[in-house]
Amino acid sequence: MDITPGALLARINTPDDLKLLTREQLHQVCDELRQYIIDVVSVHGGHFGASLGVVELSVALHYVYNTPYDQLVWDVGHQAYGHKILTGRRENFHTNRKYKGLSGFPKRSESEYDTFGVGHSSTSISAALGMAIAAKLKGEDRKSVAVIGDGAMTAGMAFEAMNHAGVADADMLVVLNDNCMSIDPNVGALKEYLTDITTSHTYNKFRDDVWKMLGKLPVGKHFTRDMASKLEAGVKGMISKSSNLFESLGIRYFGPIDGHNITKLVDTLKDLRSMPGPKLLHIVTVKGKGYELAEKDQTKWHAPGLFDKVTGEIYKKKFDTIQPPKYQDVFGHTMIELAEKNEKIMGITPAMPSGSSLKFMMEKMPARALDVGICEQHAATLSAGLATQGMRVFCNIYSSFMQRAFDQVVHDIAIQKLPVVLCLDRAGLVGEDGPTHHGAYDVAYFRCIPDMIISAPMNEKELRNLMYTAQLESTVYPFVIRYPRGEGVMPDWKTPFEEITIGKGRKIKDGKDVAILTFGHPGNFATAAIRELRTEGIDPAHYDMRFVKPIDEALLHEVFSNYSNIITVEDGTVIGGFGSAVLEFMNAHNYKSTVKILGIPDRLVEHGTLKELHRECGYDATAIAATVRSFVKDKVHTSFTIAG
Amino acid sequence: MDITPGALLARINTPDDLKLLTREQLHQVCDELRQYIIDVVSVHGGHFGASLGVVELSVALHYVYNTPYDQLVWDVGHQAYGHKILTGRRENFHTNRKYKGLSGFPKRSESEYDTFGVGHSSTSISAALGMAIAAKLKGEDRKSVAVIGDGAMTAGMAFEAMNHAGVADADMLVVLNDNCMSIDPNVGALKEYLTDITTSHTYNKFRDDVWKMLGKLPVGKHFTRDMASKLEAGVKGMISKSSNLFESLGIRYFGPIDGHNITKLVDTLKDLRSMPGPKLLHIVTVKGKGYELAEKDQTKWHAPGLFDKVTGEIYKKKFDTIQPPKYQDVFGHTMIELAEKNEKIMGITPAMPSGSSLKFMMEKMPARALDVGICEQHAATLSAGLATQGMRVFCNIYSSFMQRAFDQVVHDIAIQKLPVVLCLDRAGLVGEDGPTHHGAYDVAYFRCIPDMIISAPMNEKELRNLMYTAQLESTVYPFVIRYPRGEGVMPDWKTPFEEITIGKGRKIKDGKDVAILTFGHPGNFATAAIRELRTEGIDPAHYDMRFVKPIDEALLHEVFSNYSNIITVEDGTVIGGFGSAVLEFMNAHNYKSTVKILGIPDRLVEHGTLKELHRECGYDATAIAATVRSFVKDKVHTSFTIAG
Repeated sequence: MDITPGALLARINTPDDLKLLTREQLHQVCDELRQYIIDVVSVHGGHFGASLGVVELSVALHYVYNTPYDQLVWDVGHQAYGHKILTGRRENFHTNRKYKGLSGFPKRSESEYDTFGVGHSSTSISAALGMAIAAKLKGEDRKSVAVIGDGAMTAGMAFEAMNHAGVADADMLVVLNDNCMSIDPNVGALKEYLTDITTSHTYNKFRDDVWKMLGKLPVGKHFTRDMASKLEAGVKGMISKSSNLFESLGIRYFGPIDGHNITKLVDTLKDLRSMPGPKLLHIVTVKGKGYELAEKDQTKWHAPGLFDKVTGEIYKKKFDTIQPPKYQDVFGHTMIELAEKNEKIMGITPAMPSGSSLKFMMEKMPARALDVGICEQHAATLSAGLATQGMRVFCNIYSSFMQRAFDQVVHDIAIQKLPVVLCLDRAGLVGEDGPTHHGAYDVAYFRCIPDMIISAPMNEKELRNLMYTAQLESTVYPFVIRYPRGEGVMPDWKTPFEEITIGKGRKIKDGKDVAILTFGHPGNFATAAIRELRTEGIDPAHYDMRFVKPIDEALLHEVFSNYSNIITVEDGTVIGGFGSAVLEFMNAHNYKSTVKILGIPDRLVEHGTLKELHRECGYDATAIAATVRSFVKDKVHTSFTIAG
Repeated sequence: MDITPGALLARINTPDDLKLLTREQLHQVCDELRQYIIDVVSVHGGHFGASLGVVELSVALHYVYNTPYDQLVWDVGHQAYGHKILTGRRENFHTNRKYKGLSGFPKRSESEYDTFGVGHSSTSISAALGMAIAAKLKGEDRKSVAVIGDGAMTAGMAFEAMNHAGVADADMLVVLNDNCMSIDPNVGALKEYLTDITTSHTYNKFRDDVWKMLGKLPVGKHFTRDMASKLEAGVKGMISKSSNLFESLGIRYFGPIDGHNITKLVDTLKDLRSMPGPKLLHIVTVKGKGYELAEKDQTKWHAPGLFDKVTGEIYKKKFDTIQPPKYQDVFGHTMIELAEKNEKIMGITPAMPSGSSLKFMMEKMPARALDVGICEQHAATLSAGLATQGMRVFCNIYSSFMQRAFDQVVHDIAIQKLPVVLCLDRAGLVGEDGPTHHGAYDVAYFRCIPDMIISAPMNEKELRNLMYTAQLESTVYPFVIRYPRGEGVMPDWKTPFEEITIGKGRKIKDGKDVAILTFGHPGNFATAAIRELRTEGIDPAHYDMRFVKPIDEALLHEVFSNYSNIITVEDGTVIGGFGSAVLEFMNAHNYKSTVKILGIPDRLVEHGTLKELHRECGYDATAIAATVRSFVKDKVHTSFTIAG
């Protein structure tokens, strides 16, 4: 579909073109940019609200700063569509998030304007500070700017970077884009502090007022000059050093200003650009700005899918209305069912109540289901602290974000053998979000940790039963349940709970020639492959291992005693994952079968639909069937050779 | 050696005994506790300065709080010796950090008073908050206290926990033990802020002064009642909400007070114990307090080893004076050599300048070697930011602490293919620090990440050559160099630099019957084993693989073509590590050899000397020799069987 940009926007192929415009024309550019984002995203999909919220900021930054010589770092990157459109990617923008198309996030290999690849939150200040320190060392007048949301500011690494920036004496600007939102509403004390700064009469004009008043202090009998000067010194000291959280950390604070006032933004950024040292500009914006529905329901419109831009109707995906449901919703509803029976159960999510569907429990049992903000580290150790008091915590973290809590899981949960349940949502390939978000590594990075139980359900019933098993008193170790993004396979998913013996897999079917061992959801790919192969007279066995740790040794002995050709299938890296666990078993027990490991290959997998990526990576039904055929063919071939 | 505690201390077997004493007697208890720590540590070793600094705090907390019902969490745990001595472990304290003895850190399995196991920094607030939230949910009047140093407070997860605590409405006290030190002097903006609070006349009495003055404000022509009330409201708003970094985050701030004044501590803690909500008590202490030398050189006396408590003479370890040097010092001195030739080189350490020996470069090239504080996450992404500007950063992080930067390495370094050099110090078993500090998992958790180069030197020369290779322009991928704590094997270590082809191992010797493949320093264990075996007429081959990724496939083809019995040896977990990489190669190329994997077993390994632990884990020279013998014996046995 051909989407026409506005007249000014059509002329902007690089920020140099933008700089040719007058300040007055910037209003029109902002309008056109906003409209273009609405036009393209409504038809092609993608993240929506975040980019609408920073239209003015995107224009102002590229207008004022000398990009790409000056370095802009966009935190997370959901909000960088305007930036992409202004930096040479307008015409390709309709390929956003599509297979072989533009990335949904800034990406160094895509453009020199994308100075730092993002996806996970809160990296921008560290990265920009590194750039600023390098510029200083090299004697370059290169500026660095980090644009970070108030949600991302709650993650610890943003604080770590500010703690360093405050003493690093490097030229860096942090733009704090305060819209009170992560994907869901932002939470925590920092958010309340920022709201307080922004809305409070006491603070907002306080700095000015105090100076004015101090100048007017009368000196009399009860109030000496000495006292006045002490008071002034005291107030001065507080205002310059301690009055503001950021200034406490040695970072000059400016704002808050209206982030939709392009003139004010340009003026302020011009001033700040020439100011040395670390500084922070607090701008207040509205996520979804300019599209009324998106302003009103910001979580829904974070990434709404395709929609009619005129009526605001969001087109339903087929799975929104019919069963099977998403694994996420099975998790969310099952949490409530279990928590109603077991009062020790709690749910923790670091800023993903909607994405994980913990929101259902948060609504129903607000004291027992907590959104703790973007802070996976704290989420994991908080869960450990709760577990020491006998609580049974389900800590739900996306697989790729769990990387950020890796040490906490090792150090606070696993070493202490605390029975925290770690639900790894978005495990395996995630599709359009691409390499930063693929949950490729969790089996490998957790499998090496002693005493971890690592499981994956093949369907909704298995997910429910694993969750049920994980919360039993008899389960005394950390318990990982990994499951993919999106829909399962069972329309009638609300099955009665059954305990699963930990470390016990299941034989799905006997067969001959080849055994297929699967871990988790890809078991369904194997089922589809077998259905196809049977029409050809090929009939492999299929085992759903369910646990990669402890792995079902009895079942593996059965497999290796009966099959010399084995295929493993997993939605995770082939290095160190489920397949490697099978190899370690085979080696330890001196079996000599031939094993073919299917899974995520040892290279970065880019974005695309799940179907496209599973095909590319060679572990969809077609690939499994082909691998089985190659074994059978080899066998036939071998037989011929012997016969010949 | 029999060490006698003072008269009062001798009667304290639990905090209940302590509570029987009068407040006046607490001074004597503190003196006796301090002396007992000096007496025992001087003879038996261990961490020193940190525990001396919190003698009064330890006594006061156990005097005021109802432990173990109330929950004390000691951050990091270096400072918990006093706590251990007061909680039933006085008589066993001489076994501290020894094989099968007490842990050097609080540990749940050791005592009910150790409510949360620690070792890595900055976990205490999250853990204590979890405990406090659980108490609230359960309706218990149980108090939670986190004791955290100003160094640990700089790590992001402490901020994450405070951001949550400020809105969680749970009863928790954070004691900020401000001594301006990590192991090395603390750095960063927060440290300067705390120093400012503590030393500044403007802040210290400001709160009181302002109230007094406001009460005395005269009202006259130029200063109306309205203005006065506005000023009062403004100051009130600032003081209550914004005047203090911690209060900005919704945590009530108290202090600073002298942390060596036992009476003041007891009074203050009593008040705070009954106060609801999240609060922070800022105490100022001196690390090493009461032992003059330790107060003066706090880094040296963090963990001095054995010493004469009267003269202060620290007994030299044999390796302090003679060669071979520590790997750490080879790293430190080689950094300078390389940086003098390549101006792009920088060094980054998160708070371990002494431990890593980066301090040499920091002294000589302060702009290019930075201690960024306890913040592994920031250290990794800062390094990535620097790398985008062409800098060649050596980011030195202990293997077990690198767990905390795992996501940043994946997301900011590896996915972007930035050629950051990650030096993993303390890789493998670390000895007395035990399970929290063993660098057991890094090969497994990094091997699954695409495009990582993962290497380990077998000796000092190899370390230097790997460092040299890592900084060459032609090296364009993230480059991990892992090496153990402590001394190497080469007295003449200052060898000329030679480039090593990435992914290339080396054959150390040919042999027959068995091939030993080693990765890193344990290659020396194999050398010792082979020396022993040769006296028995057994002569295995030995390959030093040097790289686990990319692994030397040509060399492995040679090995698998010539040897059906293979032993792999690594100073890392046997799950998913070097041995697994060899199995994956064997499987991919359809070799059918028998492989025995020696390394850190899949269970927690406790503390002890390296020698004790290598023996226990079965990969020292003795174990390697025994494994070779078992292969040779099997072979002889097999031959007999066939002959028979």
